Amino acid sequence: MTVVHTSPRTGTLSAHLDAGLLSPVRAGTPVEAAVGDSAWLQAMLDAEAGLARAQTRCGTVPAQAAAAITAAARAELLDVRELALAARETANPVVGLVKALTAVVAERCPEAAEYVHRGSTSQDVFDTGAMLVAQRALRLIVADLRAVAEALAGLAATHRDTAMAGRTLALHAVPTTFGLKAAGWRALVLDSVERLECLVDGGLPVSLGGAAGTLAGYLQYAGEGADPAGVLDELGAAFADETGLAVPVLPWHALRTPVADLGAALAHTTGALGKIAADVLVLARTEIGEVAEPAVAGRGASSAMPHKRNPVLATLIRSAALQVPALAAVLMQCLPTEDERSAGMWHAEWQPLREALRLTGGAAYTAVELARGLTVRPERMRANLQATGGQLVSERVSAVLAPRIGKTAAKELLTQASLLASRAGLPLAEVLADLPQLAGVLSREEATALLDPAGYTGVAGPLVDRALTAPGLGRAPAP
Amino acid sequence: MTVVHTSPRTGTLSAHLDAGLLSPVRAGTPVEAAVGDSAWLQAMLDAEAGLARAQTRCGTVPAQAAAAITAAARAELLDVRELALAARETANPVVGLVKALTAVVAERCPEAAEYVHRGSTSQDVFDTGAMLVAQRALRLIVADLRAVAEALAGLAATHRDTAMAGRTLALHAVPTTFGLKAAGWRALVLDSVERLECLVDGGLPVSLGGAAGTLAGYLQYAGEGADPAGVLDELGAAFADETGLAVPVLPWHALRTPVADLGAALAHTTGALGKIAADVLVLARTEIGEVAEPAVAGRGASSAMPHKRNPVLATLIRSAALQVPALAAVLMQCLPTEDERSAGMWHAEWQPLREALRLTGGAAYTAVELARGLTVRPERMRANLQATGGQLVSERVSAVLAPRIGKTAAKELLTQASLLASRAGLPLAEVLADLPQLAGVLSREEATALLDPAGYTGVAGPLVDRALTAPGLGRAPAP
Amino acid sequence: MTVVHTSPRTGTLSAHLDAGLLSPVRAGTPVEAAVGDSAWLQAMLDAEAGLARAQTRCGTVPAQAAAAITAAARAELLDVRELALAARETANPVVGLVKALTAVVAERCPEAAEYVHRGSTSQDVFDTGAMLVAQRALRLIVADLRAVAEALAGLAATHRDTAMAGRTLALHAVPTTFGLKAAGWRALVLDSVERLECLVDGGLPVSLGGAAGTLAGYLQYAGEGADPAGVLDELGAAFADETGLAVPVLPWHALRTPVADLGAALAHTTGALGKIAADVLVLARTEIGEVAEPAVAGRGASSAMPHKRNPVLATLIRSAALQVPALAAVLMQCLPTEDERSAGMWHAEWQPLREALRLTGGAAYTAVELARGLTVRPERMRANLQATGGQLVSERVSAVLAPRIGKTAAKELLTQASLLASRAGLPLAEVLADLPQLAGVLSREEATALLDPAGYTGVAGPLVDRALTAPGLGRAPAP
Amino acid sequence: MTVVHTSPRTGTLSAHLDAGLLSPVRAGTPVEAAVGDSAWLQAMLDAEAGLARAQTRCGTVPAQAAAAITAAARAELLDVRELALAARETANPVVGLVKALTAVVAERCPEAAEYVHRGSTSQDVFDTGAMLVAQRALRLIVADLRAVAEALAGLAATHRDTAMAGRTLALHAVPTTFGLKAAGWRALVLDSVERLECLVDGGLPVSLGGAAGTLAGYLQYAGEGADPAGVLDELGAAFADETGLAVPVLPWHALRTPVADLGAALAHTTGALGKIAADVLVLARTEIGEVAEPAVAGRGASSAMPHKRNPVLATLIRSAALQVPALAAVLMQCLPTEDERSAGMWHAEWQPLREALRLTGGAAYTAVELARGLTVRPERMRANLQATGGQLVSERVSAVLAPRIGKTAAKELLTQASLLASRAGLPLAEVLADLPQLAGVLSREEATALLDPAGYTGVAGPLVDRALTAPGLGRAPAP
Repeated sequence: MTVVHTSPRTGTLSAHLDAGLLSPVRAGTPVEAAVGDSAWLQAMLDAEAGLARAQTRCGTVPAQAAAAITAAARAELLDVRELALAARETANPVVGLVKALTAVVAERCPEAAEYVHRGSTSQDVFDTGAMLVAQRALRLIVADLRAVAEALAGLAATHRDTAMAGRTLALHAVPTTFGLKAAGWRALVLDSVERLECLVDGGLPVSLGGAAGTLAGYLQYAGEGADPAGVLDELGAAFADETGLAVPVLPWHALRTPVADLGAALAHTTGALGKIAADVLVLARTEIGEVAEPAVAGRGASSAMPHKRNPVLATLIRSAALQVPALAAVLMQCLPTEDERSAGMWHAEWQPLREALRLTGGAAYTAVELARGLTVRPERMRANLQATGGQLVSERVSAVLAPRIGKTAAKELLTQASLLASRAGLPLAEVLADLPQLAGVLSREEATALLDPAGYTGVAGPLVDRALTAPGLGRAPAP
Repeated sequence: MTVVHTSPRTGTLSAHLDAGLLSPVRAGTPVEAAVGDSAWLQAMLDAEAGLARAQTRCGTVPAQAAAAITAAARAELLDVRELALAARETANPVVGLVKALTAVVAERCPEAAEYVHRGSTSQDVFDTGAMLVAQRALRLIVADLRAVAEALAGLAATHRDTAMAGRTLALHAVPTTFGLKAAGWRALVLDSVERLECLVDGGLPVSLGGAAGTLAGYLQYAGEGADPAGVLDELGAAFADETGLAVPVLPWHALRTPVADLGAALAHTTGALGKIAADVLVLARTEIGEVAEPAVAGRGASSAMPHKRNPVLATLIRSAALQVPALAAVLMQCLPTEDERSAGMWHAEWQPLREALRLTGGAAYTAVELARGLTVRPERMRANLQATGGQLVSERVSAVLAPRIGKTAAKELLTQASLLASRAGLPLAEVLADLPQLAGVLSREEATALLDPAGYTGVAGPLVDRALTAPGLGRAPAP
Repeated sequence: MTVVHTSPRTGTLSAHLDAGLLSPVRAGTPVEAAVGDSAWLQAMLDAEAGLARAQTRCGTVPAQAAAAITAAARAELLDVRELALAARETANPVVGLVKALTAVVAERCPEAAEYVHRGSTSQDVFDTGAMLVAQRALRLIVADLRAVAEALAGLAATHRDTAMAGRTLALHAVPTTFGLKAAGWRALVLDSVERLECLVDGGLPVSLGGAAGTLAGYLQYAGEGADPAGVLDELGAAFADETGLAVPVLPWHALRTPVADLGAALAHTTGALGKIAADVLVLARTEIGEVAEPAVAGRGASSAMPHKRNPVLATLIRSAALQVPALAAVLMQCLPTEDERSAGMWHAEWQPLREALRLTGGAAYTAVELARGLTVRPERMRANLQATGGQLVSERVSAVLAPRIGKTAAKELLTQASLLASRAGLPLAEVLADLPQLAGVLSREEATALLDPAGYTGVAGPLVDRALTAPGLGRAPAP
Repeated sequence: MTVVHTSPRTGTLSAHLDAGLLSPVRAGTPVEAAVGDSAWLQAMLDAEAGLARAQTRCGTVPAQAAAAITAAARAELLDVRELALAARETANPVVGLVKALTAVVAERCPEAAEYVHRGSTSQDVFDTGAMLVAQRALRLIVADLRAVAEALAGLAATHRDTAMAGRTLALHAVPTTFGLKAAGWRALVLDSVERLECLVDGGLPVSLGGAAGTLAGYLQYAGEGADPAGVLDELGAAFADETGLAVPVLPWHALRTPVADLGAALAHTTGALGKIAADVLVLARTEIGEVAEPAVAGRGASSAMPHKRNPVLATLIRSAALQVPALAAVLMQCLPTEDERSAGMWHAEWQPLREALRLTGGAAYTAVELARGLTVRPERMRANLQATGGQLVSERVSAVLAPRIGKTAAKELLTQASLLASRAGLPLAEVLADLPQLAGVLSREEATALLDPAGYTGVAGPLVDRALTAPGLGRAPAP
């Protein structure tokens, strides 16, 4: 009655290795499926089929052979577990995949079998497959990030002038607005979009190098009179066209810019979403209560405490943000790969790349729901703004007094008055009004007016306006 | 015909998420199964059952209820995918597990249902389950490491006096022996064993804290007159006894020493095995050829090149060694967890811990085959020792000449003679014999004798003898 | 008038490279000085001197030569900047150091010069020096950690029964006590002490291998009739005795357990201190206010805001905790070092090891002041416990009602009542008392009594008692 | 007589903290000075001065005050060690810097003192300073990388057709050319240049937010009638213009894209240079000997072995490549920073950012010398190509035989023939010629011709041609 892997060929069973139990941030999300082993296998098969069709376009593989290979290149015809086990013998899954695919082709169209993987090498197929997986995943992620940004734009516009405490080093600093906070979140998310789209649009190349990056096998099969430069140009272009990937300048078996770039962009993305989560977790604290996660029946329940409605979306996003930088570091560490193909550095990339993709995808998916459903509580923001009795506007009074009594004296006086107000539990305005040093310098009315938090939000409003027309933090909108 | 997840309850299918395709180092190894989602689910169920039995021993749960819970706590009765999906709502899989387990119990023994998870909290069950998984995995790993160490001891003893080039900064330095190299590998592996066994023997505690680490729920269910100190002592001891784990001094929901220690010990282990792999990959190079991986039909085949017999075992081990330190860093980063339970840091540990366990387990399993089957080629070692025409013994001549012509002069002279020998392609002994400065200082015969690499292996032999009676690098054997 | 490096030999000047400006957590602390370049140079000189004296004890270096070398081995006699620059030519600073030290010795005692670095190799001197630096730093760190633990023990005892809100996933969960929190901090710190002391007491070995780990140079200089096993045993023991370090089983040039262990123990330590900082930063938040950092004039000032008294000690500690795990990962990544000495992996350890030592030392030093001076505000804890109108004790009512109306019904009812109470802004006891389903089941008086937070702290008290007699989390005290 | 820090104010001395002793890869390089504490201090002073001048341009600070501040803003007038020590009190060095700078200004031009840091906050000054430091360092790095690329272009052109063994998984695979290898190195380096220049050209913004990112202080000082949007636009543009940095869309106190981008680009750069180093270290091995580092007197000397000329440049570069990914991971981990300014995450960025800059700078500087001086030995490449008796061209024969005897049969036959040739120590051509299965299929002459390694370099030549006109791996040159 349990859930098992049933291998169609070996008949053996094995229990679930990964059903998402330890990674709820991505369990059941579209990206999880898009980067799973079955999807990865399909992408490698797509690479084999695309290569055969590309060779057909170059005249080195008969069209019907390419058609037969394409028809056979379906993951459900192979046994992914069997391929995984076979990969231990050769250190990569492609040797077994070629054998299994050839067998399927041979069964259906014997004369096509010899054209499978012709002139190719494991890394061409694996890496092209990996780029296809990445491209499919990034498209899902970018769509989710755009949805997040749109929801955040709405929050920023709605709360353009909703004052709240700005917090630095854990304490109330000066007022800010929730609109500015949301606009900042959106800018970060759009920075991620920019970095990911840069990869989708040209940064994910086919891998086409043959055994050691010279395309010698492809050239050999192109026949004796083949023009090397011609084979290079035509085959690369055709392969890229068939797969929808880019043409690299050189084979990149040992030049791992595309993988390192993926690591960097994915780490930025979970970092950006993690910033939102970090802020939500602060603002959702029981004592602060300025935001709440979307209320959904059963969501956020505790196994013990009936009253809990945990901020689970932010928790899940944060769990991803804590993992992806380390995975990205693994990918970056693998840049200094030795030789024409490393013994181990290439292999170390695979699982971290997949894990980074699905954690990021899960975080983005989760963030859509968080951003769209976030409950904002302006009344709690107002209440908390009063918590320090006006002290969080002390900077302003200091600025007003500077020309009157000197900058240093003003700051020192405010420091002392704030301390006094804290100890006595009095509003700062009252303490200031009673200070003999300020008699004739600052009236009670002026002090009270100056210390209204809502009146000291600086250029928060114009910043929101500017940010909402910009595509990220780093690109100012055209004037 | 393909391999799918069939959910017994939802009837939905999903393609393979992880069949090991991207991680051949562990595909199909015993540790892979021991830490997979099904195994993790079973371990959490073992925790629930053990808790119920422990409460029975403390008199707060009827014996037959504990028996019913124990009987129902079987992973094959639950749907692990369903639990994974449900975990998104609560940020952990235990809330759903408790519900599902309660349903199974209720169906079979209705009066026992209310005793499921009594007084408990998600983290108690998850963390106890995690420690059970770790313990089971570590036992497999330690057994494999001991097998590796035994095989290396054999190599060290056999090759105690097999001279080979010692290499530093990629170049021949002075001679060493293969026995000393193998003894060093073994010492590192035993260092890992020591660190892992320290965890197995007392470093993996039950988690027993209740909602916020005060055991208040357990105490409440123990009844009004229950003595707090008594509940604490008895329940902890009984739970530890039922699960085979240790009793911690305090609930460790937010005190993550056990998880950080696992990270450190696993990183040491893949590092130790990775050292062996790094050396094998150097020594197996085509031009060096001093060792070869065990020859197995089909092993190490390339998809393109018929002549290749790739060092796949070392490659797989190295791929693990490149990943685990980053995963361990994630676990260590999660030590500064806030509050009584973190919103995200706890959750970020799960997948990296599992991944570190299975990569290490896969590396250890692979290393057994590598160590047992390694082919050593003393004739290539001898040949390579001659490659520099005696230059790798230049240090020795320098030491002999020092008292005769002064240390600095001796070293400079040898530096020049080595350069001359390299340029002329002559043995160093001949160059030295012809040097006018050495006339009457060093005869041709003495030079030739001194420059025999086999005669300059220092105390390599006694070091091997010493190491083979020691349990690691850091613990000298009793005299 | 500025601060410059004046090189006594080259006469050149260079501006400050590192005066601590970017690392306030360690600026001016004792560990900073103990691991700086001057201290590191002195430690390497101590290694050279210790080696010479050890060789004297073995009869291979005249006593007066060892005395002359010892007298000359003072960092202030050498130019550390000049050595740093020279190290670029040889990839390590020891080649230059030997040359410079030999020159000093030669000037004072010409006949001793030839005994400098006799039979040795750069790595023996560098690594022995590194272990000396580590030992000196760890002793400072352990002393500070013990002071932290003592202060925390005081807090735990004083606040054994001070109830406060337990917080999980950012929200109030159930009550706990501040004493239990402080006892947990202390246990983590003592776990670090245990790991560090394990290194100080035998885990930091001398390095003694000669050019490729066979001690061939040392043996050669010991003379023709020297017994290899005797040289090995005697020289190692004497060198260890002269330096106060341990004797390793094997030369560890390429067996890096001691360095990896340092990484792991230092990451644990900053993690442990980081946990304290994380909690302090939450509890010090303006809205929470349950603790405050020690008030010191000028401490925590802002450049802009007069009222701010920032929690700077916790901020500094956290800044270290965020860095050290990554540095430890570098050290662990360097375990799989190739050959008898790696070209690059050895060299990559140096700066991260020093940085990890000084960040940890700075964090420990800072934590002493934080722990000793922490202001605890029981009145704010009490006030915050009331913030949810009793909801944080909902678990207890659920447990009480379970036998009366069934466990599932009880939990659901409490969930609804909590939601209702939140929406209406009413105490949970009142809502419960008015529920028709509880008429005759739970009286208003019982509800009110049950929902008193101070009455639901479980076994927090006995846990504190137990923890204060235990040497860490993992070692239960003898009964 | 030693080298000490002499503090002009405190008169105290302290030994060297960092003179580069542990980091020879950057000791004495221009980047080391450009990012040292003195340079960092100067950059922060440049920020203060630039801000004052920008405010002058906006009419809020008198021109002569800005001039006085600019004149006083010289690092040599302040005591960097004193500022570092003071930073412990406020968790950042700017509070003390403002105080010290104000004192210098006050001494020279009292009426200007009140305009120092007017309306500003520590983070504006620190982060603007950090971006200035980064910009200055990146310019040095880019110049060095361009020099590396130019030298590599020369090597690629010269060796366009120099055949050598292609190596995969540590073994000879098929032939390649040294020109293609060098062209690949160059492409990677240009990828780094592209990423770094993208930062220099607009990715390094001024920081201008005031206490909590609203510019409220700046607006307040702009006077009552100031137009917020106008202040925002004008002040930002003027500040950017004065410092040469970019204008960000929003204050980025808690939106850390610029810092994360720096981490990613620097990790790419050391990874790219590390790839060169990894290859050089393989090819320089004693048994391989296909390249050698530039011969410089004294360079690469060992403290023990007279004959050694260690590949120290590659060693140093690799030591940097092993460290920077972890430092970049720290920077990426700090993206999810909480609040308007984090308590600790901001502070954790500083030292890793500086360390990543100077390691990268040191690696780039070192790589210039390596690339310009690399000795290439075509004769050793030719000799090594013969090492396998033609087996590394087995793929080609397999391709030729495939249409004659079938693809699978061809591959199997070559596998067996290779094994036979290895065991017998015979050239593959001879074994093939004697095989009865190939009688009439492949003549001895054809076999010999096919197995000439120099004839099987695929499209390596055209790839070099293409790459030398492209600006990196990912951007194909316009046709």
